[in-house]
Amino acid sequence: MFNTRIILKERPSGKVTESNMAVETAPVPDLQEGEVLVQNEYISIDPAMRGWMNEGTTYMPGVAIGSVMRGFAVGVVIESRHAEFKPGDLVQGLTGVQQYAVANSSKLQKINSSLFPPSWYLGVLGMPGLTAYFGLLDKGKPLPGETVLVSAAAGMVGSMVGQIALLKGCTVIGIAGGAEKCSYVTNELGFHHCIDYKKGNISALLRQVVPTGVHVYFDNVGGDLLDAALLNLAMGARVVICGAIAQYNDDHFNGLKNYMKIVTARGSISGIIVFDYFSRSAEAISDISEWLQLGKIKYREHIVDGIDNYVPALDMLFTGKNIGKLVLKV
Amino acid sequence: MFNTRIILKERPSGKVTESNMAVETAPVPDLQEGEVLVQNEYISIDPAMRGWMNEGTTYMPGVAIGSVMRGFAVGVVIESRHAEFKPGDLVQGLTGVQQYAVANSSKLQKINSSLFPPSWYLGVLGMPGLTAYFGLLDKGKPLPGETVLVSAAAGMVGSMVGQIALLKGCTVIGIAGGAEKCSYVTNELGFHHCIDYKKGNISALLRQVVPTGVHVYFDNVGGDLLDAALLNLAMGARVVICGAIAQYNDDHFNGLKNYMKIVTARGSISGIIVFDYFSRSAEAISDISEWLQLGKIKYREHIVDGIDNYVPALDMLFTGKNIGKLVLKV
Repeated sequence: MFNTRIILKERPSGKVTESNMAVETAPVPDLQEGEVLVQNEYISIDPAMRGWMNEGTTYMPGVAIGSVMRGFAVGVVIESRHAEFKPGDLVQGLTGVQQYAVANSSKLQKINSSLFPPSWYLGVLGMPGLTAYFGLLDKGKPLPGETVLVSAAAGMVGSMVGQIALLKGCTVIGIAGGAEKCSYVTNELGFHHCIDYKKGNISALLRQVVPTGVHVYFDNVGGDLLDAALLNLAMGARVVICGAIAQYNDDHFNGLKNYMKIVTARGSISGIIVFDYFSRSAEAISDISEWLQLGKIKYREHIVDGIDNYVPALDMLFTGKNIGKLVLKV
Repeated sequence: MFNTRIILKERPSGKVTESNMAVETAPVPDLQEGEVLVQNEYISIDPAMRGWMNEGTTYMPGVAIGSVMRGFAVGVVIESRHAEFKPGDLVQGLTGVQQYAVANSSKLQKINSSLFPPSWYLGVLGMPGLTAYFGLLDKGKPLPGETVLVSAAAGMVGSMVGQIALLKGCTVIGIAGGAEKCSYVTNELGFHHCIDYKKGNISALLRQVVPTGVHVYFDNVGGDLLDAALLNLAMGARVVICGAIAQYNDDHFNGLKNYMKIVTARGSISGIIVFDYFSRSAEAISDISEWLQLGKIKYREHIVDGIDNYVPALDMLFTGKNIGKLVLKV
């Protein structure tokens, strides 16, 4: 049996290109005791992937050159040498951008697919959903009546953050690029307002919409949007940094100019790393499942077909072409 | 009776020059009911003064063009139309860079000069001392055994922060410019180590001294030093921003490049504005007085003579020429 897999051939400088990656075919190795063979069905396309391609120390080491690209996936067990898993089980894990994965059983979690489609465990019920949940509630700590601003508001994490903030009684402002995304954010997701960052000076637009400043800024983008938000903070504001998608591909980022505003606002800047919350994932999944079943949270996927479309799919994240959670169907 | 006063003639761009300020002489006006005439003896020279010369909104409005430059001073009451103050009383307040001030009594506080020299109420027992005390203890929250890093370590606030951190059982590392300052910081103040930022790449020097990272970084400088500290944080680090002396004179600051490191370190960035703590000043003054009397805190002043030396005195702060608290003797 042969396995098609996406290999990190060289570290990208800036934007990821086809030449940075290789599509390889290799035989599937035999299982060792405790291992499970998984056939991946859906692979999550996440902004974090760009960071994982770098060498530098972060919350995880970079992917080694010549290795299978790291990625979350859901799949079905087709062979098992561990008592807890049997063929036919649906599982999720960091099984990589490949068709088949031989995984240590300790790295896999079973999925209950009776309520929701399996791919949702890559998004609303997976790492991005938990990022939004804990980043907003545990780090941002929004109070009813406060104003929550979130960038990349039509994206996976942003759309969840805003919807959870609405459920908590906040005034919710999104930032997104273009009329279609803004319409999705306000009309479908119910945000109070969405600022189209393509329409001019974002700080000025923000000042018009929230003249008294924002209490929580959930930052998925970094760079200039973060600088603009820093100019529009309410007293005691909490800035939660989730990602810096604007910078991942940018070797020439000039840095945050307005960071002193966090001092005058008596605020704080911190970040969210979802891996720190895995021990509390049941709590989040229980709340999010209930919200989904009651129709209080809306969820949209953007599915790209075919594992060889990995690079164009990843590129969509950075060019802002997708609305909803990007998933690669194997 | 005539009053010599320093007027903000125009807003400086970058470094403050003599031409930005005017030395004026004007008659002292008659007192209204509730007012007190103070003869200033010592005027505090603080980095914050540079910020007060700007127009932009901060925690206080900028000084108006044509007005007396804002400044903390201690002086003696020579005439009073308020029952609580009588001639001969020593007082402190924001009475400005001038010989005589007509002040509303509500803006003045009496000083007990039996224990310490009056000028100390501009430093170790005044706004800078409280900044160090609350910035370190209330914002930085250092635990015994943790590593505290402080920039401008030979300066007023930095030297206090480090000495208080020593009293709390921390390992204390200073950053200062030049061998003389570093020797003062380690030999006189007792810091465990002092990094001379003139000796090369500060981040590399820091990594040698604290390979496991710092738990609290108390930032008096901003700019490149803050960026270097962000590269050397321990998990859960608290960055307390007090000032950005490196930037006050710099119209072309490029911004903070390494702010994402606060995310991977699971840390937080916040700031200290001492005005928020005035209701708690007794607590700090009581502790600091005790430490001074027991010889646990050392304090040094750098006194510049003559009110017309205001601009060169202020310049010393930014060129790093002073060791100890800068005070202008009227």
